[in-house]
Amino acid sequence: AHWPPEAGFWISRSYQYFPPGTVHVAIVDPGVGTEREIILASKDGHIFMAPDNGLLAPLLEDADQVCKLDNEVLPKLGIETPSLTFHGRDIFAPLAAEFAAGRINLNDVGIEISDWTPGWLEEPEVTNDSVHGIVVTVDAFGNLISNIDQSLIKDFKQPVVSLAGHKFEMKPTYGRAKPGDYLALINSFGVVEIARAEGSAADGLGSDRGAPVVITDKVNGD
Amino acid sequence: AHWPPEAGFWISRSYQYFPPGTVHVAIVDPGVGTEREIILASKDGHIFMAPDNGLLAPLLEDADQVCKLDNEVLPKLGIETPSLTFHGRDIFAPLAAEFAAGRINLNDVGIEISDWTPGWLEEPEVTNDSVHGIVVTVDAFGNLISNIDQSLIKDFKQPVVSLAGHKFEMKPTYGRAKPGDYLALINSFGVVEIARAEGSAADGLGSDRGAPVVITDKVNGD
Amino acid sequence: AHWPPEAGFWISRSYQYFPPGTVHVAIVDPGVGTEREIILASKDGHIFMAPDNGLLAPLLEDADQVCKLDNEVLPKLGIETPSLTFHGRDIFAPLAAEFAAGRINLNDVGIEISDWTPGWLEEPEVTNDSVHGIVVTVDAFGNLISNIDQSLIKDFKQPVVSLAGHKFEMKPTYGRAKPGDYLALINSFGVVEIARAEGSAADGLGSDRGAPVVITDKVNGD
Repeated sequence: AHWPPEAGFWISRSYQYFPPGTVHVAIVDPGVGTEREIILASKDGHIFMAPDNGLLAPLLEDADQVCKLDNEVLPKLGIETPSLTFHGRDIFAPLAAEFAAGRINLNDVGIEISDWTPGWLEEPEVTNDSVHGIVVTVDAFGNLISNIDQSLIKDFKQPVVSLAGHKFEMKPTYGRAKPGDYLALINSFGVVEIARAEGSAADGLGSDRGAPVVITDKVNGD
Repeated sequence: AHWPPEAGFWISRSYQYFPPGTVHVAIVDPGVGTEREIILASKDGHIFMAPDNGLLAPLLEDADQVCKLDNEVLPKLGIETPSLTFHGRDIFAPLAAEFAAGRINLNDVGIEISDWTPGWLEEPEVTNDSVHGIVVTVDAFGNLISNIDQSLIKDFKQPVVSLAGHKFEMKPTYGRAKPGDYLALINSFGVVEIARAEGSAADGLGSDRGAPVVITDKVNGD
Repeated sequence: AHWPPEAGFWISRSYQYFPPGTVHVAIVDPGVGTEREIILASKDGHIFMAPDNGLLAPLLEDADQVCKLDNEVLPKLGIETPSLTFHGRDIFAPLAAEFAAGRINLNDVGIEISDWTPGWLEEPEVTNDSVHGIVVTVDAFGNLISNIDQSLIKDFKQPVVSLAGHKFEMKPTYGRAKPGDYLALINSFGVVEIARAEGSAADGLGSDRGAPVVITDKVNGD
């Protein structure tokens, strides 16, 4: 719970699988009820809504438009007395419904802004023969998913992934490892993942989000 | 599992967030297959369906109409041989679909009644400077949600909430407490809740549903 | 996870509760990314899709048509470069959408086949006065659900169910046993189930899927 970068990873990696016009609402918001703004953004024909706490940062840099919500428009939309603790139900959801129904657009409810709370995570550190990233999320199968995009290792001749003192060869799919064996692969979201065939890499390695992941090129490198 | 009052709390506190015409089906039913009736009720333009086991009791007192299902109408609706153990799938769901499609109304399938199985919970006990209630449910974050409506403490100058030997000050939102600290607040369903900022109050206090909650007024009271 | 027969049980026992025309996609697929085919089948006006790993075997024997996917049609449907590890999102889901929209049928994308990977489970072994089956799945309540159809014991005068060294009388519903007591019953999917009234039979008996279940007729039998 309570880790905005994880939500930011999922939203930035998955929105493309929804049709244009989709309204994406992402709320991981320990600060609900305090003075943080609500961010509204558009990109590639999609609309994104989230608290201004760094969650959306990976998307905002190249968004088409970024606004903060103008709270004064809420009563005009019939949103009169939101509770203090559940803005998802009381503000985000009714606003998203208005967007989805085509009754409002960003300019009706937002004030354009050019800076916002930055993301909590550094981008991976890249050199000629190594990439340093971290585990950004763990899925329901126990796969350890890193923030290292496949493009960062495209020139590596024989990449080797290190995590928690272990080294893993890269394979194309889970089915290419024997049950119980560990492997690394480019997963279906286009990032490097450490997995265990028919098992949980997170349990087996005792690793969790936040763990450092290093990829070196065995040919060029050490 | 198996605690009808908890389902009754959620349905009575949340139905207002659905549009009129919604059919609400709530089945927590250890007695399925025995002789309990099925209750059908209407209130504020909503329809409610549940087993007659106390679940709906908080709503029925001021419902517009309360009926029991006339089992003889089921074959006419094509509901011929329901299983003995899954009335949710075999009776409630097809009936709810007929209501939702506007093909039947309460008078077509119900027999009006004026008494029913009472609720399992007493209403909170209220005096000048104290309210005694209980934890009625625990949400996914570990927040301990009581059955004490905010209206019961509206005249308290400085309410203090007691649970499991601990006392909690009331704050407006989670974000006003430091991570790890406990607090009490009026939650988004309008009742008093004991929470832990960025943590689980249920885990931290070892409390669960059924635990007594007492609110006293520090100014008028002790 | 990773037990195709369990998915096969649920799909074959539940598809009838969906309307004809439904597309059922079932993917329990440790071999994703290896060379297994994708099976497409039609039965009773329903369409089924699954990897050819035995999952659908219980349905295929009496299906109306069984095909394997012709991978060459994928680019024509706009499915160009599926990821290697998530065929559910990249192949099954878009194909299912085309079926559901009525834009394709089995002959457009499938090549008819007459053999396929067999199921992992034997059918129950039946004699005059006994049936030997297994626990095929455990539901969220801890009910142990066997693969023994009610038809297999319809001539038994007084069936007694044995599991893990315990014997259970059959009762019509959960409500007929005292809280905490075990029972066996014909569940809402038409198979024999071992349950514990208001409790978890799986926890109480320490049993799980794969456990042998034997039903004998107390009158004819021992």
